Amino acid sequence: MIGGDAGGMTAASQAKRLAGDALDVVVVERGEYTSYAACGLPYVVAGEVDSVEDLVVRSPEAHRERGILVHTRTEVTSIDTDAGTVTVAEVDSGAQRTESYDDLVIATGAVPVRPPLPGIDARGVFDLRTIPDATALDESVRGASRAVIVGGGYIGLEVAEAFIARGLGVTLLEASDQPAGTLDPDMAELVAAELRRLGVDLRLGTSADEFEVDDTGRLRGVRVGEDLIPADVAVLGVGVRPNVELAEAAGVPLGPSGAIAVDRRMRTRVEGVWAAGDCVESFHRVSRQAVNIALGTHANKQGRVVGTNIGGGYATFEGVLGTAIMRVGDAEIARTGLNEREAAAAGFEIITASTTTPARAHYFPGAEPAVVKLVAERGSGRLLGGQIVGGANSGKRIDTIATALWNGMTVAELAGVDLAYAPPFSPVWDPVLLAAGRTAAAVEAGESDRR
Amino acid sequence: MIGGDAGGMTAASQAKRLAGDALDVVVVERGEYTSYAACGLPYVVAGEVDSVEDLVVRSPEAHRERGILVHTRTEVTSIDTDAGTVTVAEVDSGAQRTESYDDLVIATGAVPVRPPLPGIDARGVFDLRTIPDATALDESVRGASRAVIVGGGYIGLEVAEAFIARGLGVTLLEASDQPAGTLDPDMAELVAAELRRLGVDLRLGTSADEFEVDDTGRLRGVRVGEDLIPADVAVLGVGVRPNVELAEAAGVPLGPSGAIAVDRRMRTRVEGVWAAGDCVESFHRVSRQAVNIALGTHANKQGRVVGTNIGGGYATFEGVLGTAIMRVGDAEIARTGLNEREAAAAGFEIITASTTTPARAHYFPGAEPAVVKLVAERGSGRLLGGQIVGGANSGKRIDTIATALWNGMTVAELAGVDLAYAPPFSPVWDPVLLAAGRTAAAVEAGESDRR
Repeated sequence: MIGGDAGGMTAASQAKRLAGDALDVVVVERGEYTSYAACGLPYVVAGEVDSVEDLVVRSPEAHRERGILVHTRTEVTSIDTDAGTVTVAEVDSGAQRTESYDDLVIATGAVPVRPPLPGIDARGVFDLRTIPDATALDESVRGASRAVIVGGGYIGLEVAEAFIARGLGVTLLEASDQPAGTLDPDMAELVAAELRRLGVDLRLGTSADEFEVDDTGRLRGVRVGEDLIPADVAVLGVGVRPNVELAEAAGVPLGPSGAIAVDRRMRTRVEGVWAAGDCVESFHRVSRQAVNIALGTHANKQGRVVGTNIGGGYATFEGVLGTAIMRVGDAEIARTGLNEREAAAAGFEIITASTTTPARAHYFPGAEPAVVKLVAERGSGRLLGGQIVGGANSGKRIDTIATALWNGMTVAELAGVDLAYAPPFSPVWDPVLLAAGRTAAAVEAGESDRR
Repeated sequence: MIGGDAGGMTAASQAKRLAGDALDVVVVERGEYTSYAACGLPYVVAGEVDSVEDLVVRSPEAHRERGILVHTRTEVTSIDTDAGTVTVAEVDSGAQRTESYDDLVIATGAVPVRPPLPGIDARGVFDLRTIPDATALDESVRGASRAVIVGGGYIGLEVAEAFIARGLGVTLLEASDQPAGTLDPDMAELVAAELRRLGVDLRLGTSADEFEVDDTGRLRGVRVGEDLIPADVAVLGVGVRPNVELAEAAGVPLGPSGAIAVDRRMRTRVEGVWAAGDCVESFHRVSRQAVNIALGTHANKQGRVVGTNIGGGYATFEGVLGTAIMRVGDAEIARTGLNEREAAAAGFEIITASTTTPARAHYFPGAEPAVVKLVAERGSGRLLGGQIVGGANSGKRIDTIATALWNGMTVAELAGVDLAYAPPFSPVWDPVLLAAGRTAAAVEAGESDRR
């Protein structure tokens, strides 16, 4: 396995569990850690989780105890798919050796996009993708008072929340006209409002032009046109791209999304070479297109599929919906399937509707409103996607929508599902049912029902 | 409409909305209130909801403003289905009149089961089904110090929680060997543990023999064999039965469950007569049998179906799973589909498995464990039901299981669904996915995986 996080290490564990001593499982990991919850990094920075060590699900030692040979601070520098060998290099010493394989798993993950801006390598400018990133950022935040975040995606928003929790003044720059780009603009507005309520200086339609450094090479601010936004620390959250250079160099074909192409069993198009995680592309069950969506949920499932297949079992990966959830302040934000833009790009004509209802009985203390928006196909009423922005206990309702979507339900069908109700948990018509009913009515009327 | 709560009033509102002035909608309600959230009554008793008035979704006046003729404190005493008339009586004066109908909706709900025990009508012994019940109970609890609850179903458990919140000493008598009879015994044990943790004196396998009264006719205790359990107040929670006397007398056929038989459009077997809510039987989508499950969620959906059909539209009721949720202390308790006993009764051979995992990332503050149990068909692995007992944010995950069940998924399929993950909300493998995966493995092994 090339890569010892979600995709690779899950594959290793599963293969070892199934095959036991019959299979030598070797993991080559560039960093020092294995199997850690990268999604937890912002919460370490926030101080909500005590230590990066808490995020490590299973250390290299623990994996070794289970019979997996883990090499850390080691990387694969090339693959010879004809010979069935890889060149392995020690990160620190540079020492190289060749290892052979019967099955190879490429789980090289994703790397942060780093726009070619002056000063981007300055001290004080951070990515947040790895445990060392988090440790360095955490340190840098001590004594800092002003931060600029570049990019309003998942990481940008979670870091904004973390910095606010740490008492920093936060400016968030987002080049497009909305944060949370995987939501529709009307839903993203609610996210923008929550960011502003938290005290984030949210600047939409605004790009960083330069990271300005002082004489010591340390960040002193982010330049936007003529303005200098003072900052002790800056974080890049402009997205990630699949880390496919190694695969490409070895002739492992990429797909239309730019990530490694795999079949249902997670085999690449090269015999004996498998791939899993953020570096592969996945079948999107609604658009039926190949997509590259970097989410830990997909990586873990794919790793398990690879491990089962390599370990002598049989498993397939059944595709993705791009279901995701996040918290910003008091807002729970979730989405699944296609948003309006994605649906249009996939060729669908759509009808949408939204409802605003509390996630508990209206008379129950703490009944905060949740907005649920559904996207359906015109005519058929087939569910294409859903989005939620709401208060406590609203966001995970996206799973109900995702399960409906997974099964190809129409919004009218979803409106009839027997969901649970009791006053502490839900109104008698769950917000998902209400949204489905309203969307079904909009489909029948042939016209979207705007909030 | 005979009955002005969930089933009847929802039917009335929907019919009026669709048909407008073309349809005279008349509702006959025995009590003073319409459209109230009966499920909220325990929370009024607990003091968690301020007033019973908060539970009224729409008053008779509000319905009248929308053009519905609502008669309160009025009841239908007989139906002549040949003539298309009903006899209507004023509850207070006894004055009777005859009204004619084109469409009649029977929404007479359910009535509490009252075992024929000596003293059951004493002052201090309560049902909790209506707003006047709650008002009287709330009053009686003031100054009371000891309570006995007879029956450990939903109402019994919610009242136990409410009484504890009010500072009463609570004894709960349950004739069977577990509380929460819709759960399997292993899951119900967790509920029993939580009740005991709250300080409830839970006595299983124990029935009340008599309500003992003092000279003034007031309750002074509940007799169990030789023992007298002192009590200032007692609540009956031994279940409900469909209120079908009126329908039966009119020759409207009941089904095998003892409730009114209806078709998919909620038509009874008598021309022009419809029914909805706790008095009807429903198609259970998993057992494919007719069941009578008194839940507000079913009543509301059925009322809407009736109202749509009467109002000139077309709607069908697509059946139930018996999905339910409740809170007891810190425990969230939920279930859907068939439990082990129900599955066996329906003829299924089953495999079960359970998982215990936190409902948030393990390293995240407040990550409390949740037990998720799934019941699957042997061989096919078809999902038959699910149960959850866990801490905060665990219970509503039952909706994901219910949606999978609604669509006839296997546990292996459910294990692959793209559910949402972020550390504040879920481990990377959601407890539902873990439980599904473990159940799928148990199905493959041909043996249940006991916790």
